[in-house]
Amino acid sequence: MSHILILGGDGYLGWPTAMYFSARGYDVTVVDNYFRRNACTELDTGMLYPVPTLIERAKIWHTTTGKEVKVVIGDLTEPELMRSLFDQAKIRYAWAQDETFSGLPDTVVHYAEQPSAPYSVMNYRRADVTLTNNLRTTNNLMWAVRDMSRHTHIIKLGTMGEYGTPNIDIEEGWIDIEHKGRNGRFLFPRQGGSLYHTTKIMDTDLLWLGVRMWDLKVTDLMQGPVYGIETEESKLDARLNTLFNYDEIFGTIINRFITQAVIGYPLTVYGGGGQTRGYLHIKDTLQCIHMAERTSAEAGELRIFNQFMETFSANDIAALTKKIGKERGHDVAIDHLENPRKEMEEHYYNPVHKGLIEIGVEPHYLTDEAMHGLFEVVERYKGNIRNDVIFRGIKWD
Amino acid sequence: MSHILILGGDGYLGWPTAMYFSARGYDVTVVDNYFRRNACTELDTGMLYPVPTLIERAKIWHTTTGKEVKVVIGDLTEPELMRSLFDQAKIRYAWAQDETFSGLPDTVVHYAEQPSAPYSVMNYRRADVTLTNNLRTTNNLMWAVRDMSRHTHIIKLGTMGEYGTPNIDIEEGWIDIEHKGRNGRFLFPRQGGSLYHTTKIMDTDLLWLGVRMWDLKVTDLMQGPVYGIETEESKLDARLNTLFNYDEIFGTIINRFITQAVIGYPLTVYGGGGQTRGYLHIKDTLQCIHMAERTSAEAGELRIFNQFMETFSANDIAALTKKIGKERGHDVAIDHLENPRKEMEEHYYNPVHKGLIEIGVEPHYLTDEAMHGLFEVVERYKGNIRNDVIFRGIKWD
Repeated sequence: MSHILILGGDGYLGWPTAMYFSARGYDVTVVDNYFRRNACTELDTGMLYPVPTLIERAKIWHTTTGKEVKVVIGDLTEPELMRSLFDQAKIRYAWAQDETFSGLPDTVVHYAEQPSAPYSVMNYRRADVTLTNNLRTTNNLMWAVRDMSRHTHIIKLGTMGEYGTPNIDIEEGWIDIEHKGRNGRFLFPRQGGSLYHTTKIMDTDLLWLGVRMWDLKVTDLMQGPVYGIETEESKLDARLNTLFNYDEIFGTIINRFITQAVIGYPLTVYGGGGQTRGYLHIKDTLQCIHMAERTSAEAGELRIFNQFMETFSANDIAALTKKIGKERGHDVAIDHLENPRKEMEEHYYNPVHKGLIEIGVEPHYLTDEAMHGLFEVVERYKGNIRNDVIFRGIKWD
Repeated sequence: MSHILILGGDGYLGWPTAMYFSARGYDVTVVDNYFRRNACTELDTGMLYPVPTLIERAKIWHTTTGKEVKVVIGDLTEPELMRSLFDQAKIRYAWAQDETFSGLPDTVVHYAEQPSAPYSVMNYRRADVTLTNNLRTTNNLMWAVRDMSRHTHIIKLGTMGEYGTPNIDIEEGWIDIEHKGRNGRFLFPRQGGSLYHTTKIMDTDLLWLGVRMWDLKVTDLMQGPVYGIETEESKLDARLNTLFNYDEIFGTIINRFITQAVIGYPLTVYGGGGQTRGYLHIKDTLQCIHMAERTSAEAGELRIFNQFMETFSANDIAALTKKIGKERGHDVAIDHLENPRKEMEEHYYNPVHKGLIEIGVEPHYLTDEAMHGLFEVVERYKGNIRNDVIFRGIKWD
């Protein structure tokens, strides 16, 4: 069976991905250094509910399903730790039911990044941490695959935020430019709205180098903001739920708004609220990764997909949250805060997103029914929600 | 008088820049951690002649001219060291005639990078060092200026290698793209041919973020390969000559070919030799920096210049070196080695380079007379040239 290695396996997407593939019979190894949890603790961001450690979750998963997720705890900015994952003699499991090496991975899913835009611009130290973590990890991965396992398919999570909000249609990764009577094909021009987004652009550039120089196989998924908690696998045991942030630093907008609605906190729309992005349900992230894994990029190919299912403005999401919240008896107001970010509040936005559908992804949409489902989960934990962490106004400047 | 801070002040361009501005009455502070020298020692690359330490050179400069270049020795990947340069209470000079703080810099010239493409792809450790050194230093600089000295103009050395060799004309940094009936202005698309070149692209992206988010003033000089040793200032004392590498790792092509010609080593053209680049004399680097410093970018402007004076193919340079070498009595052959790099050996190349001329730079060209001058300096040190370091075939793969 295929062996899949998940970097950042303790994160919001990492753990659900690990269970998803394990449930389908894959050999799964996860790696994490608890960066995200530690940052949440340090910043006192709160979480919707406590989450067992990665090792504890692997054990619960094993007890519940009889299946194994092997766990390595370590910092992937260290080249030697990264390389140990590709080396039977050097890999060290923090937990595994069976410590036999699963072999070189057929696929690596790379989530091991500091994923928050506000965190990345809080101050110079966190900027340095973001840059160092994200770039070194990607570079170490590229070199490990180059040196030790060239058949491995790298699936790297990018972000739609790499493109920013240009005045032209956003293509899927590439653009043909005609200029002064000549033609060329280029990576679509990108400019990030935070240091975090800029590191994601750099990740793409690094892996594009690896593809051109060493014929690596890379799929880059330009993902929009994800919403949701539950997946098929997490429903087996509430302790298997993924970590859920609802604060301004690590929470994503739909998750934040629903949490705010549940406790009667006015929805925190930034500025005018015309900021438009492409969204997807966490179950669709799993589907996208799965379809990317099944089809693979070719050797020497950087395959790019825009990973979202539908676009909404912040105002659209606020209005929908208010409507569903009211139906469920919540008192929902909408606030327009002075925008702490530097971003356009009204802009053109027309990104292509065909590729993942073409390889078999079947989208979920943010229907009223889906929203009711999201509310229902958050409501279960209403007593845990802390008012004081929802918005503290981390400014870009 | 203006205060100019030179990061990487011990390097091939850093030290001549320091003397150039000091001679013209500027307050000059240089910073270096001897990374380049140490790498040369570690890799046994040889140098054309021994070079006194940065502190020794500052003292020689002071004795010779009565002028002062203040010296800080330290690693700029450390945020605290970078920030100390902007803080009267924290700066620590390794040498200064007068230890009074020169004040916040009006201009920072950022050369503090691992500058070798072959070094950057030798192995995973050197790749990690290159990435970490170049990106952290640039990011630390950006944050120090953001937090402590927003009026400071940052002049960052980029490279023409950021653009690669696209099939369309290379503009000066920016391109207007019409796409599906809409228009946008973007950074010119870039793709580097090594990890080093990729880090330079990332530097540009980082500073472009700083310009958009915090209204920093940035000039980015996309420089071609530089040749030459002597400047007006170095002629005062041979011990003031800049460090000169002629090996394949740190030597630039014209300097390497002349050195090879002087000892009768067949010129090391890689592959077909049609690789075309834009070149400039080291004196023109100094002029370009000076004109960029005098004119400055505006707050919120990323000003980009393509910094070279004329284009040549590797074959052009080999032919010219052979011709001048023969006139000087050297026995010069041309070898076409199997190309250790991954690059196009025949390609379109038509880069714009108008901006620096418009702000007052008066180009030097690689005339026969100029070539004779370059040969003359290298011939003085003929006895020091080591055959064994000229080519060892560091492969991209």
